[in-house]
Amino acid sequence: MDLARSPLARPFPDIPPINGVTLRIARARYKEWDRCDLTFVELAEGSSVAGVFTKNVCCSSEVELGRENVAKGTARAIIVNAGNSNAFTGYRGREAVEQIMAQVAARLGCEPAEVLVSSTGVIGVPLPKDKARAGVEAALTAEPCRWEDATNTIGTTDTFAKGARASAMVGETRIEIGGIIKGSGMIAPDMATMLGYVFTDAAVEPVFLQTLLSDINTRTFSCITVDGDTSTSDTVLVCATGRAGHAPIASFDDPGADAFAAALEDVCRTLAQLVVRDGEGAQKFIEVAVTGAVSDESARRIGLAIGNSPLVKTAIAGGDANWGRVVMAVGKAGEPADRDRLSIGFGGHWAARDGQPVADYHEAPVANHLKGQDIRMDVDLGMGDGRATVWTCDLTHGYIDINADYRS
Amino acid sequence: MDLARSPLARPFPDIPPINGVTLRIARARYKEWDRCDLTFVELAEGSSVAGVFTKNVCCSSEVELGRENVAKGTARAIIVNAGNSNAFTGYRGREAVEQIMAQVAARLGCEPAEVLVSSTGVIGVPLPKDKARAGVEAALTAEPCRWEDATNTIGTTDTFAKGARASAMVGETRIEIGGIIKGSGMIAPDMATMLGYVFTDAAVEPVFLQTLLSDINTRTFSCITVDGDTSTSDTVLVCATGRAGHAPIASFDDPGADAFAAALEDVCRTLAQLVVRDGEGAQKFIEVAVTGAVSDESARRIGLAIGNSPLVKTAIAGGDANWGRVVMAVGKAGEPADRDRLSIGFGGHWAARDGQPVADYHEAPVANHLKGQDIRMDVDLGMGDGRATVWTCDLTHGYIDINADYRS
Repeated sequence: MDLARSPLARPFPDIPPINGVTLRIARARYKEWDRCDLTFVELAEGSSVAGVFTKNVCCSSEVELGRENVAKGTARAIIVNAGNSNAFTGYRGREAVEQIMAQVAARLGCEPAEVLVSSTGVIGVPLPKDKARAGVEAALTAEPCRWEDATNTIGTTDTFAKGARASAMVGETRIEIGGIIKGSGMIAPDMATMLGYVFTDAAVEPVFLQTLLSDINTRTFSCITVDGDTSTSDTVLVCATGRAGHAPIASFDDPGADAFAAALEDVCRTLAQLVVRDGEGAQKFIEVAVTGAVSDESARRIGLAIGNSPLVKTAIAGGDANWGRVVMAVGKAGEPADRDRLSIGFGGHWAARDGQPVADYHEAPVANHLKGQDIRMDVDLGMGDGRATVWTCDLTHGYIDINADYRS
Repeated sequence: MDLARSPLARPFPDIPPINGVTLRIARARYKEWDRCDLTFVELAEGSSVAGVFTKNVCCSSEVELGRENVAKGTARAIIVNAGNSNAFTGYRGREAVEQIMAQVAARLGCEPAEVLVSSTGVIGVPLPKDKARAGVEAALTAEPCRWEDATNTIGTTDTFAKGARASAMVGETRIEIGGIIKGSGMIAPDMATMLGYVFTDAAVEPVFLQTLLSDINTRTFSCITVDGDTSTSDTVLVCATGRAGHAPIASFDDPGADAFAAALEDVCRTLAQLVVRDGEGAQKFIEVAVTGAVSDESARRIGLAIGNSPLVKTAIAGGDANWGRVVMAVGKAGEPADRDRLSIGFGGHWAARDGQPVADYHEAPVANHLKGQDIRMDVDLGMGDGRATVWTCDLTHGYIDINADYRS
């Protein structure tokens, strides 16, 4: 199945080398294909790690072990398998992950728990241990590769390579942050697994790094939706090698903490948005800005109810400023809302204010906005100060094509 | 927009007259169309009423007033407007409903609170009072009509008329139950409003009638989903005229209570399933039977997570026994589940047992089952005794056509 490049694609950025991070790729041949499908990221000794994982309770062994290992705070390597998600494979799947951890740890002279493994692809088929062993061996001895090569290697049916970069000053030291992600290109019977990896040469204590990532996650990766479905393998890791040489950041009281946090959030937000831009069948990128909710979390839930509504998403696909469907989505979110204080707008024009259609509403500028690729929706609850921005895409025939008409 | 009759349609049943119930229809011309669009149901004095309503907090004035009025327990009339949902119209919409209540009450010599009003159609446009007044006047004086005529009159873009009937013995008295419903045929910018009305000549005390309906609702109307979206107007009313002449049923201790409850549940289940059979773009009717959950409510939530999953629904549309997507949907339901105790089957064949693919799984009989129109999915959690059955339909190009490609 050849997927056309998303019309919402963005060029791959020029991510600089990150001191303490080496990327290598190899062919494990998890599927019958002629492409690299195993990625090995080597991290300098003493690297901090933080992670966020899927909340799906039927998660893969990679996620279970990854959660345990990340809690220890340090990492030396990441292995990413593409073509087989190893999810729903019981003890045999878990053994394959443990084999990879042991193999890499033996070579690097580290603890197996410092080796983090992710897998994406077919589910229900245990990751073949022989292919994994040979693939890891090949990757361990491969030449270092570029960011874009590694990004293509973690991808499955992504239609474009997704990366982001930022830099910040920590005291007098310039630090770099680079991130790559795979997303929601998806082919039956896979699930749309999101795997994201962010690297920096900054020095950040693991506990603080986790605090930052968990917080940033609520405004970035947790604010995107393609179809409301949640993969059993979703993972985002942030690794800080400390090679930039500044004094480690352990709290917001330390110099450069704010700058680093802002740069990290930039990278995470860009990566999250890129996943939506490669949403299955997406023709339009939709930003839903929710204000006036009783809390930020309530605003996020309302935004996701809108972003997950098939009726809202098909309306946008059809260029229809259908605020009635937005009202419906707000009302079903299970959050405090008052019909008579609700306002809804598109592209900066209010269509409804305080629970009633705007009397002098002119459809032309709104219709024009909805013809574009980047759609902005404003939803004001009129209740409090809670706000959140959620990103999603439209629901089109392309989604049905990808998920129903083709078989693996 | 001409919608093709659903391939899953069922013939309209032969519902007998219900003593104490008279149906009349008229043209209010809420839209530019040449069809009846106002239904008037007259109920004999002393009729009991019970109702369940949308949980959408942005509900219509009809729902707000209906909830208050039903709580009083008696009703003399129902008015249903088709073509304008009167939702999100503020005080002007509320005034229109109150006008109809007063107009009908004056004619029947009853309290306005005994007149229940529903509306379905365009939102954001206040129900025009002049058209409502003339339409109600015409309906009050019209000749009585048949069940199928009333069903077509409450419909909007339904592709077939949906009704159900049952009878039961209450002591020595045979009672009749007849029900009609409109569902998820939908056209932008409307929402897929479900309006259901069930009538019986049985004598049932209002409090017990409400208890029965609320309980039955958890296994019928609350167990269907087309796209997970919730209309601002959803309403189901049950009216009992008591004209069959037996002693009123006030609890399960009274003769015939069990038989009546079972017959009422039959009618409600059939009506609920018919709504799914007219789901937008539906090509397949899907029954999801969840067992082994920690509670019935947990089983229902898991079933709805599966039934709402676009990935599951597109897989079924494509005839793909994609149990991996079912695992994913179970895991994201937010309910207790254990990956390693989960079993999933299609058409009576297990595809996965206890968290692993079935070793001798043969795809042919499953693939054959999935080619049919009536799909059965079994999901066993292996945790407890909770069970629920949920009904949904597949997600096809037809859904996108109806909701994105056409405009009102």
